[in-house]
Amino acid sequence: MVSSALTIDELAQFCKRKGFIFRSSDIYGGFSGFWDYGPLGVELFQNVKRDFWKWFVARDDMAGIEASVISHPTTWQASGHVASFSDVAVVCTKCKQATKLDKSEVGKVNCSACGGKYEVQGEFSLMFKTNVGALKPTEAYLRGETAQAMFMDFKLVQETARKQLPFGIAQVGRCFRNEIAPRDFIFRCREFTIGEFEFFIHPDEKTCALLDAGHKKVKVRLLDAETQVKGKETLKETTIGAMVKEGRLDEWHAYWLAEQLLWFDSLGLAEKIKIREHMKTELSHYSSATFDLDFEYPFGSNEVGGNANRGQYDLGQHVQFSKQKLEVFDEKTKQKVVPRVIEPTFGMDRIVMALLCNAYEHDVKRDNVILHLPAYLAPAQVAVFPLTGKGKEEKIARALVKELRAEGWGVVYDESGSIGKRYARQDESGTPLCITIDPESEKTDNVTIRDRDSTKQVVVELGGVVEVVRKVIRGEKLVTLGKNVETRVK
Amino acid sequence: MVSSALTIDELAQFCKRKGFIFRSSDIYGGFSGFWDYGPLGVELFQNVKRDFWKWFVARDDMAGIEASVISHPTTWQASGHVASFSDVAVVCTKCKQATKLDKSEVGKVNCSACGGKYEVQGEFSLMFKTNVGALKPTEAYLRGETAQAMFMDFKLVQETARKQLPFGIAQVGRCFRNEIAPRDFIFRCREFTIGEFEFFIHPDEKTCALLDAGHKKVKVRLLDAETQVKGKETLKETTIGAMVKEGRLDEWHAYWLAEQLLWFDSLGLAEKIKIREHMKTELSHYSSATFDLDFEYPFGSNEVGGNANRGQYDLGQHVQFSKQKLEVFDEKTKQKVVPRVIEPTFGMDRIVMALLCNAYEHDVKRDNVILHLPAYLAPAQVAVFPLTGKGKEEKIARALVKELRAEGWGVVYDESGSIGKRYARQDESGTPLCITIDPESEKTDNVTIRDRDSTKQVVVELGGVVEVVRKVIRGEKLVTLGKNVETRVK
Repeated sequence: MVSSALTIDELAQFCKRKGFIFRSSDIYGGFSGFWDYGPLGVELFQNVKRDFWKWFVARDDMAGIEASVISHPTTWQASGHVASFSDVAVVCTKCKQATKLDKSEVGKVNCSACGGKYEVQGEFSLMFKTNVGALKPTEAYLRGETAQAMFMDFKLVQETARKQLPFGIAQVGRCFRNEIAPRDFIFRCREFTIGEFEFFIHPDEKTCALLDAGHKKVKVRLLDAETQVKGKETLKETTIGAMVKEGRLDEWHAYWLAEQLLWFDSLGLAEKIKIREHMKTELSHYSSATFDLDFEYPFGSNEVGGNANRGQYDLGQHVQFSKQKLEVFDEKTKQKVVPRVIEPTFGMDRIVMALLCNAYEHDVKRDNVILHLPAYLAPAQVAVFPLTGKGKEEKIARALVKELRAEGWGVVYDESGSIGKRYARQDESGTPLCITIDPESEKTDNVTIRDRDSTKQVVVELGGVVEVVRKVIRGEKLVTLGKNVETRVK
Repeated sequence: MVSSALTIDELAQFCKRKGFIFRSSDIYGGFSGFWDYGPLGVELFQNVKRDFWKWFVARDDMAGIEASVISHPTTWQASGHVASFSDVAVVCTKCKQATKLDKSEVGKVNCSACGGKYEVQGEFSLMFKTNVGALKPTEAYLRGETAQAMFMDFKLVQETARKQLPFGIAQVGRCFRNEIAPRDFIFRCREFTIGEFEFFIHPDEKTCALLDAGHKKVKVRLLDAETQVKGKETLKETTIGAMVKEGRLDEWHAYWLAEQLLWFDSLGLAEKIKIREHMKTELSHYSSATFDLDFEYPFGSNEVGGNANRGQYDLGQHVQFSKQKLEVFDEKTKQKVVPRVIEPTFGMDRIVMALLCNAYEHDVKRDNVILHLPAYLAPAQVAVFPLTGKGKEEKIARALVKELRAEGWGVVYDESGSIGKRYARQDESGTPLCITIDPESEKTDNVTIRDRDSTKQVVVELGGVVEVVRKVIRGEKLVTLGKNVETRVK
């Protein structure tokens, strides 16, 4: 359904035109690396965040938190961010474009735009600094990731939420990185939202009872470490189960990687996800295995999520710096242990961008963009149109809007322009269902519901609309839920 | 229902013990002015934010946004924050306690703790500064309020969301203020969440068609300007309608103040809200009227929200600094105008704190804290207990948990300890409904549901549980929804 020709610029223009995403401070010429979600964008974004929560946090073995962006400065010394979370700024000697390199790339790569040689400008920390307090200011940092709060609050959460191993702590929140060269629309920003969790496991427990046949069967398009070492980009079609057998990751790591892929599948994104296994040379010294989850964006395949086996490293660091005991009593083994950690991460803005790329279709026949977003994620689930916008029609429409909003759904009321124009607007907004109240409605107490993707229409009794909408949001096809009509409302 | 003796320390201890709110970076001794929401707190907080959105944003005349925390630095020059958003730090010469004063208070007040004289330490900006960009860093600010994004994005939102005057732009988001003396638990923090909106109106339009009899009847406990000038603290019992008649505020301003009070009423907080009218001497030069909405916290009555008539000031400032036209064509009058603005604001963390204060009861008879939160706001709506936690009971319980979670509700599964202990835990968490699966359930396919506040129990068929829960969340009494039983499950 994606237009093959979609470019990042076309997407950005569309997002601005429809009110999904604006440049921050647009009236001042923007501010590089910062973006605002507009009226449609904020609704989509909220739905994605809520779905993350529903999928990963609403479980017996998980607990959520919402921590402060600014925390005690020792946080970032313990985590290693102060010492080593930095990039190297380079400028191409030929085309003069500035960009960033990972420290490992310096001297090994040439300008990606023109092939020229890079000149190193210096190494820059990605952490934003600020001063806290007036009389005796303390230098502090804006968080570059949400994970550290989960480590710092680990004991408090475990005790207050009465969790036993294994369990996880999740968070969705704003993060800040002073990127040298923000680029690719909302892909590489200086302010962005991460959804991630740390899953705490007994250090000796390698088997995972939750890893069932369904997880093992999950398909993976894998770029493995061996292939990358050879300098190749060939993908292997494999499964989570096969990856475990090959010893690429332990069962708990496999379970969470499978769950991440299953979530992407539910979002309709799985087909464009590939898993890139980190090479031994890339791995942090504390990690036994790390995977990137890359999505095929119009500008190329790049990271939308990750999954790292972090072992006991982070808790160990905080134990060392805080002198607190971050261990937990395990009921099964009767041991006090510092758990090991699996860390699944998602770039929430990158998911929004992937959803938009995936949903975007410029329909030549309809001469319009159709945004094929899943119904439950769309900015609005329903639009209600009184055909004339007058008298009884308006009254019925407004009552219906109220009834639908009470269910917590996004509902648009639109009485302006021809029905065709109103459909076109909602197609571009991604609204799956448009309900029209016409003169027939007054007589027969029924309304027409039109499906965004197929443009097919069904007639439904007014009293049954809520149930029909609920079913469509849960995945049923509209055409099976009412009396099909040709095109009663054009 | 509130314990008369509730102190802020008792509340803070309770919040830490139950996992509502922790000090940020607790393992490093905390970081003054920063807090983390724990597992229960984050669910309550999310429900409050969602309810704000449902009440104020899910309307035809509103649009939401989610803007970046960091924006173009000119933002804060135009807004006046760089020049004048500061407090004066003082230290008491007698008890040595440091605190902050508004500039207007300097030389006029003595130490609130001991009555000693204050010594001025200097004037400090409340704006957190940071540097953006690596090669040529720009000094920028963390936002001190969310409002400026609504002014900067005003035209983009108006055009893309196709809004006509009057309409509003809303946002909920993190803000940062470098407070000199953070205090009173999460009341005065350095990082906090504001929910607010700017409502744009034709500058000549003073009448408001939405202000109906219901709004006019809304009761107000008013501390008016005249009384304050006289140095008195006497409250007047009045109404929104009477305040309009007295010329204290125009109709649009009155409409939104009434809506704010109606929301507080729905949250169960209205009885402890008073409205403080700003005195002429306090008013900013651009504001014709401003009201604080104060809540009676255990440490005294203080601001939980506000409502300012900001006129055309902010848009005018951004027009001046950006040289952009921030005007809109008004269909009714066929005029291009810079709208005037009404700004209702809420401190979202302060609402959480007000809800907790209001809900907290230390029940001596039950020897337990009962948190009487409204069902739809509680961290979890339901807890499910298999009496023994084994065999069929567990199976039924887990299936029920799954069914209830699919509805989007917060659901706790608990099989540990006596039923009495499980009830007590959920009473402290504020969970309104506890469902027990016992040996009877297996035979008769029915379960016991127990009400948090009354401890009364009803028996309901398993298949009808979802509907009963839905009705209780919507405000119906549990005892009317099933067969009352004495205490089947103790």
